[in-house]
Amino acid sequence: MAKRRSKTREKLTYKASGVDISANDRMVEKIQHAMRHTYGPRVLSRAGAFAGLMRLDFRERLLKRHYRDPVLVAGADGVGSKLLLGLEHNRIRGLGVDLVAMSVNDVLTIGAEPLFFLDYVACHKLEPDRIAEIVSGISDGCRQAGCALLGGETAEMPALYAPTHFDLAGFCVGVIEHRRIIDGHRHVEPGDAVIGLASNGLHSNGFSLVRKAIRPRSKKSRLAAERLLGEPLAEALLRPTRIYVKPILKLLASYRRKRVIRAMAHITGGGLADNLLRVIPKDCDVHLSRKWPPIPPIFRLIQKCGVSKKEMDRVFNMGIGYVLVVRPAFAESILRRLNRLGESAYRIGTIRRGQGRLLRRG
Amino acid sequence: MAKRRSKTREKLTYKASGVDISANDRMVEKIQHAMRHTYGPRVLSRAGAFAGLMRLDFRERLLKRHYRDPVLVAGADGVGSKLLLGLEHNRIRGLGVDLVAMSVNDVLTIGAEPLFFLDYVACHKLEPDRIAEIVSGISDGCRQAGCALLGGETAEMPALYAPTHFDLAGFCVGVIEHRRIIDGHRHVEPGDAVIGLASNGLHSNGFSLVRKAIRPRSKKSRLAAERLLGEPLAEALLRPTRIYVKPILKLLASYRRKRVIRAMAHITGGGLADNLLRVIPKDCDVHLSRKWPPIPPIFRLIQKCGVSKKEMDRVFNMGIGYVLVVRPAFAESILRRLNRLGESAYRIGTIRRGQGRLLRRG
Repeated sequence: MAKRRSKTREKLTYKASGVDISANDRMVEKIQHAMRHTYGPRVLSRAGAFAGLMRLDFRERLLKRHYRDPVLVAGADGVGSKLLLGLEHNRIRGLGVDLVAMSVNDVLTIGAEPLFFLDYVACHKLEPDRIAEIVSGISDGCRQAGCALLGGETAEMPALYAPTHFDLAGFCVGVIEHRRIIDGHRHVEPGDAVIGLASNGLHSNGFSLVRKAIRPRSKKSRLAAERLLGEPLAEALLRPTRIYVKPILKLLASYRRKRVIRAMAHITGGGLADNLLRVIPKDCDVHLSRKWPPIPPIFRLIQKCGVSKKEMDRVFNMGIGYVLVVRPAFAESILRRLNRLGESAYRIGTIRRGQGRLLRRG
Repeated sequence: MAKRRSKTREKLTYKASGVDISANDRMVEKIQHAMRHTYGPRVLSRAGAFAGLMRLDFRERLLKRHYRDPVLVAGADGVGSKLLLGLEHNRIRGLGVDLVAMSVNDVLTIGAEPLFFLDYVACHKLEPDRIAEIVSGISDGCRQAGCALLGGETAEMPALYAPTHFDLAGFCVGVIEHRRIIDGHRHVEPGDAVIGLASNGLHSNGFSLVRKAIRPRSKKSRLAAERLLGEPLAEALLRPTRIYVKPILKLLASYRRKRVIRAMAHITGGGLADNLLRVIPKDCDVHLSRKWPPIPPIFRLIQKCGVSKKEMDRVFNMGIGYVLVVRPAFAESILRRLNRLGESAYRIGTIRRGQGRLLRRG
């Protein structure tokens, strides 16, 4: 069993700590269950160990990856202000999925397979059921990403966090064979096709702006908003971020020999422009085509609240959560494959010689 | 350059954000400098990459480790309430070292070499100089541990953190060859010797109790405390946690062939008993010898403030920050080696058949 340390354990030995020990035991049990649920054959169980252990490769001959020059790929992230909205609506399980999504989608852009995840949960007071709910959400996300929840830390800091408040941080490590690293700066060429995968809404970025823009002042305006959305407001705002790991890894596996996928970007804060331009050469432009996949209604609602189109594009994913730059000859077959894998994939543009700009038409 | 994402970037695009952009640029530059300072030959630089990249093995033939079945070892931790004390005294750089120490010393207990570290810094408002100072401290710690600061995340959340407040989380990944994993439950035997390495004081545990116990009410009582300590109070309270990585890895390297080191424990919250007992078999006891290394004066001060000896032992490291269980025939030579490596190492006890207890004599 990989460890889950808790700074509160120390606290528990203090007199008059007031913590409900049996609730705490229940929490530890639930957390361990949630963790074990994510374990694959590579996780090593070590009683009492101070750290989580995971084999890099599979032991089973059939599954062996035979890494020659494995590169570890690591990312850290939080969920930002979406957390506050989750708190306000008391919907916290989905935040665990968001936390995992933010890191694993980043690690995925290198072409790496996410191996494991660790979390940090800090709170005012350890409320066992809530912590267990958050960790269950993290476990949901890890299973969606096919990675193990290898460890974590729970910290109780009443002087730092207000009652009911907490914060989350997540860390993901993946692995990739060195020569398979996807490096857009080296491989993207003019003529390459840009493919976008649909997001399911806001994902986990832009929530400072969302919280300012959307404040239904009356029951009437809330109803109008929900008519536009076709669902409850909290539902649309707090839907967990999509995790693109499984379809993308399947796609990469089917083009093992050729360098068909040249760059990938996870569309987070900064929108399509910032996130796509950072992974392509400085002497290329992205020409967006006139066609764009349907924009989720939540973005139309935010825009109606007075945010300019330019600002929307700069802050939100606008319906595209993940982007691939691919060799043009394979664009059609990649679109078909991705759609067969359950994604909504669209050809949204083309790479041209230029100077690092994103050009929109029409 | 491995990425450092910042949730505040999104914020910067909002009108009237009020953030000093040039200060922000300075911070990013300082952070990148602090990160590069920790890079070894295994770190891969990737412009614009969404994640940090590090080769598992060295490329240079002379340095090659030739892993056959590498196991990744991961730990996550925070610094707990020590952070609040650092805030109160406006000494935050050392907290970065504490953050690294808490995770790398844990990863080390498996026998693993720490490869890289990632951090999460969340604050009320991004104050570039303070963030840069914290990350410089993290970089100090990473260099002490010989690991790369591969990435991190800075989040600005004014609704979650009070002005000047921040929180820290850290995450470390190491690697070890599978057959070299140190697993006390399998290898510790009655008769084995217990060796303790000196701590330099409180390290990063027990600070909820410290903050309750030590509150000098007058200048006189502060002066009395500092006479006992022989140094300013803040100095003694906030001295960064010792990082045991380099001497321990050297020691392990010199006993490559034989299984001489049977278990290791990082003494954190829970004290010697909790942390040592978790890594040895359930049918063994630890018999502490009468001899104990000098107890740092800070512990005597806390005890004088009314904390019982029993409680002290349960919460603090009491002068021993890291423990090794070793084959008795090698105990003397290991002690000599560790002392030559600059550690203060002491034989503090023996393993005997028993039932998972820590027995103190005299």
